[in-house]
Formats: sequence, structure tokens, C-alpha cells
Amino acid sequence: MKRTERIAVITGILMSRPNDLIPLSFFASKFSTAKSTISEDLVTIKESIHLAGKGTLDTLPGSSGGVKFLPGIGEHEAMEFLNRLADKLSSPDRMLPGGFLYITDVLFDPSIVRPLGLIFARLFRERKVDAVVTVETKGIPLALMAADALGVPTVVIRHGNKVTEGSSVSINYVSGSSKRIQAMTLAKKALAPGLRVLVIDDYIKAGGTAKGIMSLMEEFEAEVVGLGILMEEAISASVRLVDNYCALLSLVQINQAEEKTVIQANHLWKN
Amino acid sequence: MKRTERIAVITGILMSRPNDLIPLSFFASKFSTAKSTISEDLVTIKESIHLAGKGTLDTLPGSSGGVKFLPGIGEHEAMEFLNRLADKLSSPDRMLPGGFLYITDVLFDPSIVRPLGLIFARLFRERKVDAVVTVETKGIPLALMAADALGVPTVVIRHGNKVTEGSSVSINYVSGSSKRIQAMTLAKKALAPGLRVLVIDDYIKAGGTAKGIMSLMEEFEAEVVGLGILMEEAISASVRLVDNYCALLSLVQINQAEEKTVIQANHLWKN
Repeated sequence: MKRTERIAVITGILMSRPNDLIPLSFFASKFSTAKSTISEDLVTIKESIHLAGKGTLDTLPGSSGGVKFLPGIGEHEAMEFLNRLADKLSSPDRMLPGGFLYITDVLFDPSIVRPLGLIFARLFRERKVDAVVTVETKGIPLALMAADALGVPTVVIRHGNKVTEGSSVSINYVSGSSKRIQAMTLAKKALAPGLRVLVIDDYIKAGGTAKGIMSLMEEFEAEVVGLGILMEEAISASVRLVDNYCALLSLVQINQAEEKTVIQANHLWKN
Repeated sequence: MKRTERIAVITGILMSRPNDLIPLSFFASKFSTAKSTISEDLVTIKESIHLAGKGTLDTLPGSSGGVKFLPGIGEHEAMEFLNRLADKLSSPDRMLPGGFLYITDVLFDPSIVRPLGLIFARLFRERKVDAVVTVETKGIPLALMAADALGVPTVVIRHGNKVTEGSSVSINYVSGSSKRIQAMTLAKKALAPGLRVLVIDDYIKAGGTAKGIMSLMEEFEAEVVGLGILMEEAISASVRLVDNYCALLSLVQINQAEEKTVIQANHLWKN
């Protein structure tokens, strides 16, 4: 096999197994070649993936070492994507009665949530996340794609307290916008104690749900190392029940009488 | 830039944008080279991706043409993966009171549902699917990953009938195992009429939920072109309310007294 073909095959295998440590011996035996040859190929692939802005290649030396593809997205590509998404969501036909915004289709579209997951991964990878936590239903695809990019499992908190998965922990919380008392539940076996968790959700207004998740995480002795939100509603900061979150988009205005919605992409990186 | 580097960059871009038609001119201008050079590179990449068993590269000729990466998985790799998964799920500590099986962790683990999505895509790609439909909550990651591999959106049916997304269609169905009457709802705007849909769910016993989804799909004039299930429970076929589904795994036996669970991977391909 020629070097060009081998490089394409290795790139294909690495990218189809994100966050998976693959020993160099795997490739060496697959191509019946020396590990040193594979090492040279990996230098080329590493530079190319970096150049394409698709993430990084981590090489771990030693007998238990190998190579791992960490998926990523460039800052410029990320901001371009978020600006296009903000435009798409600003369309007047997305207004729902009561001043709500219809974004469900977007939240379940893999071609949109995959890049969003990469953006969350870029923002939070350095925090050494053990698991991504969300609450059903609409946050699940975002959380799953972020977890996939980070190489960790997703943990989904359920509404209500009818979880039939062995012993579980339930907490009551006040949904900030509706002021109703609700319950959320997580099975004990769903999250080992003492982990570093990233909380992901689709929307934040007053932050009651986010605060509820934080309380539930305390019950699991989890350390919440990040809180990533797709869209924040612009309200007075003093009313918000949580801070220290990172939202990708801001809903600045939704005016049904004037049929006008203003959504902006937040500046996620300095420059 | 050397040819090896260019091939690695192009492979990286194609694989990070599955099902996305990219014009050859995009690459030609990116690398300041002739389209014919890019065409030659694509021949090498196509062979390599095929060789690695990671899918296919579709090349569409003409001025509106380009190249598209369709993610896939080899039959052998798929069956190996399913056999390992069956073993993992057969562990006695996964038994829940009442003879249920704990699989929630697996359903929300991206490193498991990503390959499962590829397997569903391999099984159903030829049916020309327009959308992947599931019902909340545990089927969502499977449906999302299948939809991502197929390049189509996901549509999530909600439990109950409190959907606040404009007009919606609700139907009542009898959950086959619990014999309770329940409701499921889909917003009108979530699914355009007349589409070809693939239904994905995590589990089938009597098939009441699946039958409910079929009825709801009729209301949307959708053609159900496939029904993919992660695990079927072995029951008398005459009791099952739906047929013509494809399950990846079979729960053959779950015996709490003997602490014994038997799960098998189904033979998905002839040979």
C-alpha cells in the first residue's frame, strides 16, 4: 500500500473512533509495517487535522501508549456557525403563542447539534469532565453530542419521580419562569459519586432548572465544572438564579406585536 | 502542500461533515490547485475509506455536483460490536426488580450509540429515509445517531398531550406490557406530511408503543419505511402487535432466581 493510501486509512480510522486510544501496534500490524513508519504518518496526520481545524491528535508514548483523536472545531468556524444559527432562529415564523420560540426542530437536527457539541467540547475540554449531565428532553441531543466530542458518558435526569431503576434521588425545584414546583430524579446507579460533571441544557431564563440540577448534583457529591447553555434569554442579571454559565446564543428580544425576534451569537473567545 | 498532507486534510474535512455535499471547487480553491488534482485525491480517499470499512464516498458529477461522505460500518465490525454489547448487557448486576434489565447507561453512552446509529444506517440507508422518528426518552440517542449517519433530522414524539408548540396530534395507545392507556403527541410542524420515516426505539416487547407510533405516523401521512429496535424481548410471535421490525439484540431469558440473563446478537446479514 502506498503512503498516501495508508495515511487516508489511518485518518479514517482515527476520526471514526474519537477519544479512543489506539496503540501504534494496531496500525503496524494492520499495514505490516514498522511502528516508526506509523509514527511518521501520524506526524503528517496530526498537522493536517490541526490545519483543517478539526481537532487534535494526542500521542501517548510508552508501551501502554498510542494515539487518540480529540474532535474539535476552529474558533472562526464556530462563530460563523453560531451566527448562521442565530439568523435562522430569528425568523418570525418561529414565534409561538405566549412569546415562546420554536427551536425543537433545531435541537433534534444532528447536522446542527453535532457542531454545537464540538463547540461545547472546545469550551470545556480543559476542565477534565467525567460526564455530561442534562435533564430530559430537549437538552439530550446537545448533551450527547458534547459528551461524544469529549469522550465521556451522558447522564439524563428524568422529570417526575417515577424512575424504576433501583434506588434514586429526587429533588423538588421551582421552575423560574412558571413558578411551579416540579420534581427531577436521577437513579443512584446513573452517576458514581465524586465525579466532575459538565451540565448542558438548551435554554436558560430565570435558571430554576439549572439550580435544581446543581442541587441534585450535590446529592451525588459531583463537582459541577461547567454549565453550558445553547440560548439565554436576556433578563435582568439580578433575577437569574445561577451565574457562571456559558451561553452560545442570546435571545435579546421577542416581540409578537411587531413580529420581531432578535437573537445574537455571544462572543465566546477573546480577539 | 504535499499530496499526503492534502489527502489527510481532505479526509478530515469530509469525515467531519457527513452527508454534506461539498463542491470540488471548495477544495480546489482551498489548496490553490486544479479540480482534476482534487479528483485524483478523491479516488485515493474513496478507496481508503472503503478499505477501512468506514463508509463510502459519493461523487456527484456536474456543476451542482461534489463529493459527500456517507458514514458506514463493516458487517464484521458491526457483528463484533453487537456480540460484545450482548455480553456486557448479560451481566447479572443489570437485573432490576420485576425482571427488568438496566440498559439506560448504555443508551446514553455516545461511544456505544454512535456505532449503533451506524448499524441502523447500514440496515436502512437504501430505503431513502427522510426523517428518523422516535418517542422520548431513551430512544432519543439511538435515533439521533442513526439520523446523523443517514443525514436526516430526528423527530421526537412526546409522552402525554401537553405539547406547547402550536397545533399538535395526540393519539392514545395501550402499552402492551403494562396494559395502561397512554397518550403520545407530535406537534404538526415537527413533521411535514408525506415523508418516508424510519422509526427507531430501544426496546420492544408486545409492541404497543411501536403500534402507537405507526398510528400517529398515519395521521401525518408518513410512510414508515423501516422499524429498527435495539433489543427485542423473546415472546411468542403471535402476541406481538407489530411485525416487520429489525432488532439488533434479543433478550432470550432473564431469570432472577437463578441470576441469569441471556442476550444474543441477531444475525443481521446473510453469510
